[in-house]
Amino acid sequence: MFVEQITLPLADDLHVHLRQDHLMQTVVPLIDKGGAGRVLVMPNLKPHIKTTKQALNYQQALKALNPRVEYLMTLYLNPELTIEEIQKAATAKIIGIKSYPRGVTTNSEDGIENYEIYYALFAEMEKLGLILNLHGEVPSNAEKNICILNAEENFLQHLEKIHKNFPKLKIVLEHITTKAAVEKVEELGLTVSATITPHHLDLTVDDWAGQNHNYCKPVAKYPSDRAALRAVIKSGNPKFFLGSDSAPHLRSAKENSCACAGIFTTPLLLPYLADTFEKLNCLNKLKDFCCTFGREFYGLSALEQTITLKKISQKIPAEYNHIVPYRAEDELQWRIID
Amino acid sequence: MFVEQITLPLADDLHVHLRQDHLMQTVVPLIDKGGAGRVLVMPNLKPHIKTTKQALNYQQALKALNPRVEYLMTLYLNPELTIEEIQKAATAKIIGIKSYPRGVTTNSEDGIENYEIYYALFAEMEKLGLILNLHGEVPSNAEKNICILNAEENFLQHLEKIHKNFPKLKIVLEHITTKAAVEKVEELGLTVSATITPHHLDLTVDDWAGQNHNYCKPVAKYPSDRAALRAVIKSGNPKFFLGSDSAPHLRSAKENSCACAGIFTTPLLLPYLADTFEKLNCLNKLKDFCCTFGREFYGLSALEQTITLKKISQKIPAEYNHIVPYRAEDELQWRIID
Repeated sequence: MFVEQITLPLADDLHVHLRQDHLMQTVVPLIDKGGAGRVLVMPNLKPHIKTTKQALNYQQALKALNPRVEYLMTLYLNPELTIEEIQKAATAKIIGIKSYPRGVTTNSEDGIENYEIYYALFAEMEKLGLILNLHGEVPSNAEKNICILNAEENFLQHLEKIHKNFPKLKIVLEHITTKAAVEKVEELGLTVSATITPHHLDLTVDDWAGQNHNYCKPVAKYPSDRAALRAVIKSGNPKFFLGSDSAPHLRSAKENSCACAGIFTTPLLLPYLADTFEKLNCLNKLKDFCCTFGREFYGLSALEQTITLKKISQKIPAEYNHIVPYRAEDELQWRIID
Repeated sequence: MFVEQITLPLADDLHVHLRQDHLMQTVVPLIDKGGAGRVLVMPNLKPHIKTTKQALNYQQALKALNPRVEYLMTLYLNPELTIEEIQKAATAKIIGIKSYPRGVTTNSEDGIENYEIYYALFAEMEKLGLILNLHGEVPSNAEKNICILNAEENFLQHLEKIHKNFPKLKIVLEHITTKAAVEKVEELGLTVSATITPHHLDLTVDDWAGQNHNYCKPVAKYPSDRAALRAVIKSGNPKFFLGSDSAPHLRSAKENSCACAGIFTTPLLLPYLADTFEKLNCLNKLKDFCCTFGREFYGLSALEQTITLKKISQKIPAEYNHIVPYRAEDELQWRIID
């Protein structure tokens, strides 16, 4: 069947980086243009979002820039976080606590090293229904043969251990990139799910070698890993849903001798996905991946406003105010129409 | 024992890219400054060096730029190459025939896809004592799960097959990067050896992700692969010797959105190696790695001129006429003194 138009609710993008200052001002107005109506906002700002107060202030700033979008807020898991702060966060409808292993991505210098010190917090989160959002990579360690290629696979034991200890705690393993992660999330209980980015459905290691605009963390891996991500999307397993990990950086921070990690997909999020899902012959899975599975896992209401994607080609802009988008200047087969 | 000065013959760098035009003019005068007195020159120019005449013309140009260095020439293996041309090459003291799988590195668009079409040439090379220099990677193929990370390992079957069919043909597997390659070269007969670059003794995948000046082909791989390269160097196995694969590109070709592959080590070749060998506690292996094992495999006479390395620190320049060297602006612990 030839599909040339799709209408679906605004998407839930359950993992975005909206940044601060100049970047924030450029990115936030583009969220709904890309087709998302609700986003889970990452807390790795400078300084990190560590308190409810900081999160609410940040949420206010985002709303002021773009009131058409709903912002789900998170706190940065850190040793200063108290049970009282977790309770305050839950009351303020902060939805998740994000854990970054130390040093593995942008602004994660004081990420966590040992999860057991957080068990009292996890117990409280489990009780209050807060989500644990895991950046699932262990730090590189040459002596243990751990590098960016197997950092995710080596993290899965931590995921499993936390889940065993807190079986009712809802956990999202963020931006998964490996067959091993797909299999582990499939294997564990219904309280464990995973986000998948648009770019990890497209790329392998060959695509980011020397190509900084395709360089993100976790890095895209083997073709067999990409195949596992594609297969689980096509299977319609509700444990796997959209989190774009859209991560804007200025062109100057990408095209140099030491590039920042991150791929910017916010302004064309749904057209990217429609392109990819069509290539994978699973356009019929697009709505659940973008609008149903994540929302249901998080316990959110359905968004009422809809968008329509039409099969009309468009050229991806070279940049948005000095931020180079994913697949810049390439052709997309789908666009959002009013 | 604290070593603070080493005198050794000028090195044999048995794999270098000397380029053309502007790059050639910058690079060639630096060869002996870096401590090499004899180099094996790669034929992947534009156009490729496919005939004896082209190779001798190129050799003349190199000699004119720097007569202090001896240039060992190679031809680019290609379907137009005849037995007569192989004979002519041998008479002209061209020393090797270089094979590039299609599309895996700089200027390899018409590299080889099937080795059996070259068996008549290999038989003639075996008879005449010409070396077969193999770029040991197969092209990426997502359906077969082949990407730049396992392209070398997947090539080893071809190496083994050629060696079994031509046991007296001397073969060098160039710039090896994996434990699998080390083990295969160890396992095969004495006519099979391998070159190792300075940078593959230092780097892993973590070092080139987003860092284009550390990006080369084959890419640096897992810590366990680097450990295997280091171990075989320390073992003093004569099948493994220096081929720098020094591959200059202009800064503008590296610091952009799609970087050229290659690391430039020519101007400080021996200081880089002294640094690394000292860190690995095997400075006593430096001379054989740089001046003995390769020369003996190739059947070359010893170079008489010596150089002295002294433990005096120096800062690596930011660039040489717009070419950024390996570890630019970093500190080296060794330098060559007159």
